[in-house]
Amino acid sequence: MSEFDEGTAVVRRPDEAVDSSVFDTELDKGWQIGGGINGGLLLSLAARSIGEHFAAARGLHPYPVSVSGYYVSASRPGPAELRVETVRAARSHSTGQASLLQADDEGRTLERLRVLAHFGDLARADEDVRTSATPPKLPPVEQCVGTEHAPPEFLASANMLERIDLRLDPAYVGWALGKPSGEGRIQGWFRLADGREPDPLSLLFALDALPPVTFDLGLFGWTPTVELTAHIRALPAPGWLRITHSTRNLAGGYLEEDCEIWDSRDRLVAQSRQLAVVPR
Amino acid sequence: MSEFDEGTAVVRRPDEAVDSSVFDTELDKGWQIGGGINGGLLLSLAARSIGEHFAAARGLHPYPVSVSGYYVSASRPGPAELRVETVRAARSHSTGQASLLQADDEGRTLERLRVLAHFGDLARADEDVRTSATPPKLPPVEQCVGTEHAPPEFLASANMLERIDLRLDPAYVGWALGKPSGEGRIQGWFRLADGREPDPLSLLFALDALPPVTFDLGLFGWTPTVELTAHIRALPAPGWLRITHSTRNLAGGYLEEDCEIWDSRDRLVAQSRQLAVVPR
Repeated sequence: MSEFDEGTAVVRRPDEAVDSSVFDTELDKGWQIGGGINGGLLLSLAARSIGEHFAAARGLHPYPVSVSGYYVSASRPGPAELRVETVRAARSHSTGQASLLQADDEGRTLERLRVLAHFGDLARADEDVRTSATPPKLPPVEQCVGTEHAPPEFLASANMLERIDLRLDPAYVGWALGKPSGEGRIQGWFRLADGREPDPLSLLFALDALPPVTFDLGLFGWTPTVELTAHIRALPAPGWLRITHSTRNLAGGYLEEDCEIWDSRDRLVAQSRQLAVVPR
Repeated sequence: MSEFDEGTAVVRRPDEAVDSSVFDTELDKGWQIGGGINGGLLLSLAARSIGEHFAAARGLHPYPVSVSGYYVSASRPGPAELRVETVRAARSHSTGQASLLQADDEGRTLERLRVLAHFGDLARADEDVRTSATPPKLPPVEQCVGTEHAPPEFLASANMLERIDLRLDPAYVGWALGKPSGEGRIQGWFRLADGREPDPLSLLFALDALPPVTFDLGLFGWTPTVELTAHIRALPAPGWLRITHSTRNLAGGYLEEDCEIWDSRDRLVAQSRQLAVVPR
């Protein structure tokens, strides 16, 4: 089993309910970044549990199409529970909700993340494509740079970087040498380190796997995510992914971070926007 | 009371619970568009109920900062109920959830919309602004055009248009004459017809008040919203708003519709993206 599938594995508790499920999981410290577990990994985990809930209930609509996560407290390595319910099961799609919970040191249950998601069948999707979006122009993989030049305080708490193979566009890594471009962009090639090929669940992780775009604005603190909404726009082809992260508006203590993922056949396979808190 | 405030008024049922509230409301046919009530109006209504729930419980964090709505069935004029719960109340912000429910002809309760929202205090927001976003260049209001040239089948079921004053940029209204630009853009000046000035709640409505951007691609059917996430980025100044709607990727039966709202002092006050279903 791949590291990603192991990290997002969930076990459904035996239950008679049709409209709800409870899953157990273990948040592995290998997916840690900063103080908590990577937000994209948690989004994948929630989407996997919603998908398994739908599969147990009806067997329809296997793929996450739209997933919105509200991050309400910082998760940490250890056991966690996912409570999932059906919001609505329709003919062509299903909507579900998940809450990710952990116990604190006093044994009180704390919510980490609440998720709403719309599932459909991307494999049967209409092939009509009218797009004006174009993939980023990146230098070849071998001319891009790894994350070893990131700030040491970032690397010290970024176990997750060992599980991904990330090659950043040199045009937007000036921040590693104290010269951020100021444009608010980070982009590069991405794949899972153990070679697992992309699918909709791993795209949810990849949408939040790059260093924060604020590095390119010269801001090196943590940027906690308030909310992240991901749209999976097509089933990805095998191979390297190209990922772009950008921001246009840092204001009032928040910034938006837009992400796009392109697959090896030049298809825009995922889009996301997150609202994050500006580092102090 | 303004038409907008009347259309989004909610009455809280007497209740002892701290963590949840139930509100009654009436969906007014004056906000109808196509088969149902405008999605932005419903989002405002949900956000208003979450805000009133927080006010009743704690009195903190008055403004919606991030609001995500999943549209699970088409609403219709008549009574409706909102069930609201606190997801988490923190020091600097609060997260809440709302479900909008209506009874069908057989008296069964059906969910119309489920919403997650992050509330904060935009009035106390950090004034550091670093933005590369620029307002759209629009002709003066008096050189823009009203919605009277929209397709007759659109106007026939668009009561809502009487409540807004919308002046569209002539560069992107070719669709009214059978010549859509094909770029996937619609933009214009906006205010509420009765002169009510903008605030965060009315911005949530304005983010979904323009004709669908698919008109500019020559597609005239309805585009049901799957999901819409709105970010309120600043308190808006009084006066006309400038609104842009655009799409880059129509594929696999879905398209994204990005919206930005600029206020009279050239500040980007709201951003949203919705995933919608491509018209047949």
